[in-house]
Amino acid sequence: MRFCVFGAGRMGAQHIANLAAHDTAVLEYVCDVDLERARQLAGRYGAKAIAEPRIALDDPSVDAVIIASATNTHVDLIVESARAGKAILCEKPIDLDLARVDYCADRIKDCDVPIMIGFQRRFDATHMAVKQAVLDGEVGSVEVVTIISRDPSPPPASYIAVSGGQFHDQMIHDFDMALWLTGAIGRLELCAMGSNMVDPAIGELGDTDTAHVMIRFENGAICRIDCSRRAVYGYDQRVEVFGSKGMVTSSNLLKTGVERFGAANTGARDTLLPSFMERYLPTYATELNYFVDAVSNGRKIESDFRSGRNAVLLADAARRSMTSGELVRIDLGS
Amino acid sequence: MRFCVFGAGRMGAQHIANLAAHDTAVLEYVCDVDLERARQLAGRYGAKAIAEPRIALDDPSVDAVIIASATNTHVDLIVESARAGKAILCEKPIDLDLARVDYCADRIKDCDVPIMIGFQRRFDATHMAVKQAVLDGEVGSVEVVTIISRDPSPPPASYIAVSGGQFHDQMIHDFDMALWLTGAIGRLELCAMGSNMVDPAIGELGDTDTAHVMIRFENGAICRIDCSRRAVYGYDQRVEVFGSKGMVTSSNLLKTGVERFGAANTGARDTLLPSFMERYLPTYATELNYFVDAVSNGRKIESDFRSGRNAVLLADAARRSMTSGELVRIDLGS
Amino acid sequence: MRFCVFGAGRMGAQHIANLAAHDTAVLEYVCDVDLERARQLAGRYGAKAIAEPRIALDDPSVDAVIIASATNTHVDLIVESARAGKAILCEKPIDLDLARVDYCADRIKDCDVPIMIGFQRRFDATHMAVKQAVLDGEVGSVEVVTIISRDPSPPPASYIAVSGGQFHDQMIHDFDMALWLTGAIGRLELCAMGSNMVDPAIGELGDTDTAHVMIRFENGAICRIDCSRRAVYGYDQRVEVFGSKGMVTSSNLLKTGVERFGAANTGARDTLLPSFMERYLPTYATELNYFVDAVSNGRKIESDFRSGRNAVLLADAARRSMTSGELVRIDLGS
Amino acid sequence: MRFCVFGAGRMGAQHIANLAAHDTAVLEYVCDVDLERARQLAGRYGAKAIAEPRIALDDPSVDAVIIASATNTHVDLIVESARAGKAILCEKPIDLDLARVDYCADRIKDCDVPIMIGFQRRFDATHMAVKQAVLDGEVGSVEVVTIISRDPSPPPASYIAVSGGQFHDQMIHDFDMALWLTGAIGRLELCAMGSNMVDPAIGELGDTDTAHVMIRFENGAICRIDCSRRAVYGYDQRVEVFGSKGMVTSSNLLKTGVERFGAANTGARDTLLPSFMERYLPTYATELNYFVDAVSNGRKIESDFRSGRNAVLLADAARRSMTSGELVRIDLGS
Repeated sequence: MRFCVFGAGRMGAQHIANLAAHDTAVLEYVCDVDLERARQLAGRYGAKAIAEPRIALDDPSVDAVIIASATNTHVDLIVESARAGKAILCEKPIDLDLARVDYCADRIKDCDVPIMIGFQRRFDATHMAVKQAVLDGEVGSVEVVTIISRDPSPPPASYIAVSGGQFHDQMIHDFDMALWLTGAIGRLELCAMGSNMVDPAIGELGDTDTAHVMIRFENGAICRIDCSRRAVYGYDQRVEVFGSKGMVTSSNLLKTGVERFGAANTGARDTLLPSFMERYLPTYATELNYFVDAVSNGRKIESDFRSGRNAVLLADAARRSMTSGELVRIDLGS
Repeated sequence: MRFCVFGAGRMGAQHIANLAAHDTAVLEYVCDVDLERARQLAGRYGAKAIAEPRIALDDPSVDAVIIASATNTHVDLIVESARAGKAILCEKPIDLDLARVDYCADRIKDCDVPIMIGFQRRFDATHMAVKQAVLDGEVGSVEVVTIISRDPSPPPASYIAVSGGQFHDQMIHDFDMALWLTGAIGRLELCAMGSNMVDPAIGELGDTDTAHVMIRFENGAICRIDCSRRAVYGYDQRVEVFGSKGMVTSSNLLKTGVERFGAANTGARDTLLPSFMERYLPTYATELNYFVDAVSNGRKIESDFRSGRNAVLLADAARRSMTSGELVRIDLGS
Repeated sequence: MRFCVFGAGRMGAQHIANLAAHDTAVLEYVCDVDLERARQLAGRYGAKAIAEPRIALDDPSVDAVIIASATNTHVDLIVESARAGKAILCEKPIDLDLARVDYCADRIKDCDVPIMIGFQRRFDATHMAVKQAVLDGEVGSVEVVTIISRDPSPPPASYIAVSGGQFHDQMIHDFDMALWLTGAIGRLELCAMGSNMVDPAIGELGDTDTAHVMIRFENGAICRIDCSRRAVYGYDQRVEVFGSKGMVTSSNLLKTGVERFGAANTGARDTLLPSFMERYLPTYATELNYFVDAVSNGRKIESDFRSGRNAVLLADAARRSMTSGELVRIDLGS
Repeated sequence: MRFCVFGAGRMGAQHIANLAAHDTAVLEYVCDVDLERARQLAGRYGAKAIAEPRIALDDPSVDAVIIASATNTHVDLIVESARAGKAILCEKPIDLDLARVDYCADRIKDCDVPIMIGFQRRFDATHMAVKQAVLDGEVGSVEVVTIISRDPSPPPASYIAVSGGQFHDQMIHDFDMALWLTGAIGRLELCAMGSNMVDPAIGELGDTDTAHVMIRFENGAICRIDCSRRAVYGYDQRVEVFGSKGMVTSSNLLKTGVERFGAANTGARDTLLPSFMERYLPTYATELNYFVDAVSNGRKIESDFRSGRNAVLLADAARRSMTSGELVRIDLGS
């Protein structure tokens, strides 16, 4: 299976390294508008550097693409790649604008290619263990899902300015987590609240840094999502699924297993893994394995286009709820 | 300090036992409409049994009353006791009906007696440690408060029918906890969602067993409350206060300190204290100590009438939000 | 069941309070050489104060005695009480001198009275859960038992001087714990090491404050005991039983369930229960219930005279090993 | 810095992969008596395969060697490499026979080359955090060190037969850990006990599978080591350092952060990392970094030849103690 990777930035480099280490996948092209940057990465792994996507899309030896370029290029690259018959692994989000997502869906509706949206948290070993426990019926019928997602420290204002806002940039992962863990479909109602408490610069850009959402699914299950742009104790990533038979949680991962016992307190553990990179880096290789395996064997991909659209749908609804101060009702379809 | 206890039921008996064990408090009367029940308790501790409150209220040797009778008698007993100049410790809630609470406030507004509402969780050693940490500035400015409150199993339908509903009966403690921990005043907005997922009998009575509330306080802090009428692993009582400098939590108390390590998992701890009684029993003695001390020394009582009113105010707002499907805005005053 | 309590000190007062609260037991006499002290306790519970044991032993209405007087009076009181046909609950140790223990055994060998030695840790809820797990086969065949027993701070030198030394005073509880948990009989070999690291005053008295013992039982199982006279984080009481099917531990109990998460560490829990009193106070009531129940129903008492002798036997062996610098072999019999 | 790696087995392959990933180190030769095996590894990284150590040792471009061949070849390779002026990183143990270790020391005493013995656990992030806490004075003066080291399952009898026995094969790591954490020098006394409880095949070979050692250092500190060849809950690696100011522990690392709460127990965590490979794999890269850095910058190597000899000295003493049933006294020198 031969790949072209679009985007030679941080995420692209990660995918490229995983492709190099993969047993059966082969990196054929690295494509970036900054050709020099593409060359540096391609050179290290014996691949071709290009600035023009068409070259790879027209090359029949290319089976699949990984889209890790800027968010606003995703839709066009998905459409072009799908129409060229390539299997697609695209970083989240499909687009910040639901209308563009739907335009994309419309343009590719006749293309029968595998499409996977890169919700890499689904491939985190701990989250996977929680999902498996839910599937195994350990919690019985799911009644409450709680997701806490706190960054160690806020990004720079320049990033916030183009991020799409806290719901679309940070909480979008948690929306996907909520839908993945519950398997929710159908109608839901959602209420969002947000504040600017961490960094005034974020408030000046009209964004929040403390955002909470409460969702009630059609079957009555309730999901709460708690996002913050800052937690001094590290990258806080917790999930709790509660139901009729008990509770399963995804607890935080720590830097080391050291513990301290003193006159002030006991069992004090190390701080959490410090950031997104330490926590979720291993997931990208697992995600790639899943993608290659699913495409090769014609298996259904779970983290599909619709999953990507649903996450944007929820982010939109959350923003609308917070702005209007009203509950919002949407329908995910059947 | 000489007491009359109104109500010889489970709560009354608890207060009576604590009075008997108290160094300076003296139990003078036990009053219950069921005189025989009053006699049994009074006899054990050498107190007088009465069926008529007036007798105790007219007795100048009585300094204080504990009102542990049925909820619908609270308002009248508060009014009568206050007008008789007795210090008052009244079980929560003041009344299920906010109008009655306000009527009560109006009737006693000229009475200068100490009044304490029995939010006993404020006297739980673990919750107190969290509150102290907040006061000590350990979490910095408080941004998020999360309260999880799950009963081990649902009460009988007969109880539900007269309980006032999940917000007024179960979550009222959590509303008080939220206000106590944050010291919140002023305006707030609140969104409530509820479901009937645990016991169909509860749904048939028009009540919920799974209820969630999200509150945004005037300063931007957000509070989430998660109540369920059933948790198979025991009486789940957790509080988490998150802020600019870190997080302090009130974690669950377990039956014993045994831990198990096997082929399936490790560090498996005992189940939680099984119910309200095991968890909060010790708080009643602490609460009584606080009341006697505050009254004797003329110190301000924190868990006061207004606290009791505020909790009902929030429960009303929550019910209104859930029923209407809309955010509700209220003002706690300054 | 009517009791006489010998000894009106701290332990006696505890037993007396538990007798008062017991449903069927009745406190008849409090006996102490300091008659005034006896009177104070007896008066509070409507019992008779005596200075002369004979009075109670000759009273046929007395069914049982609790011996909580000074250690050097235990043997005589056991002998006298047994010969008077009273059921006996005696605080540990029987005596610091094994020869005296054997003299005692010889003198009472024809008395058919129930005798229980007060190893109250056997009645701690957490340790009991570990024992039950062992009995239930959860750990399979027991291979390693680890006992850690650290006091919060060293006792005064005056106490050390008459304590019998760290093995007989502190570790004697752990020797009993080891034998109780393993049900060990037969031969064993034992190696002891000790140091004076905590308080020079202890070393000047020829005693240790840091003492370790390693025991190999006849079936090959190995037990390690780790005692210290000081742990700044509280009263450290841990037991770990490891075997072919897993491990069960008795972990420490904490003051509260508060946990802290900050820039330096996470999940920092409260300190341990501060001392022996907080940790083991509830065990005395459980122990009394067990004694009353066993005597009333003619059930075999597990914590019997032989258990008391075995603990002294091990303490003697440990002291001998440490002093001689050699392994010591003893036989507990079949 | 250019390397020759002796031994193309599992450990050699690991070192070779780490060399390939290292920024400044260069793999020049892979040497193995099985030339084909050497070729496979060398080919993958563009290095030369040789069967004859002399070739590499005579090549002046080679700066350093990693000795990862069979234990019985270590001494000769150390001697040859040292005399050829190469920096040496040699897997533990130097040799199973202390006489051979001393012979080796004698042969290289005039060679001024850096020598490091591969006690890789010193480079485990959690153990390092404990060591750092000790250095920072967090535990005050160290009084007790407890090391628990349990393999998930026993190795095959064929391995046991040539392993040198449990003290020299398994516990040798723990002896080094004890000396590293305490910085102990001078005289010590040691008592060892062992049993065959896990696998009869091990007993038939005259070896133990359950071995315990208690060491008293010259300053009075006591160290206990607990080794087993089987723990059903995973690879159990714990260290606890207790002292005048508190305690710091190296707790186990788990497969994932999933936790379960049910009717039987709560907070049940995942099993431990399953084996040596998962737990200690990352340490080899850290170890290599340390070696390259120390050699390049002429810094003292902590895990030196004497450390390697001391671990064998303790293993010898432990075997002697267990066999003789007596305490053994040795002197580590000043």
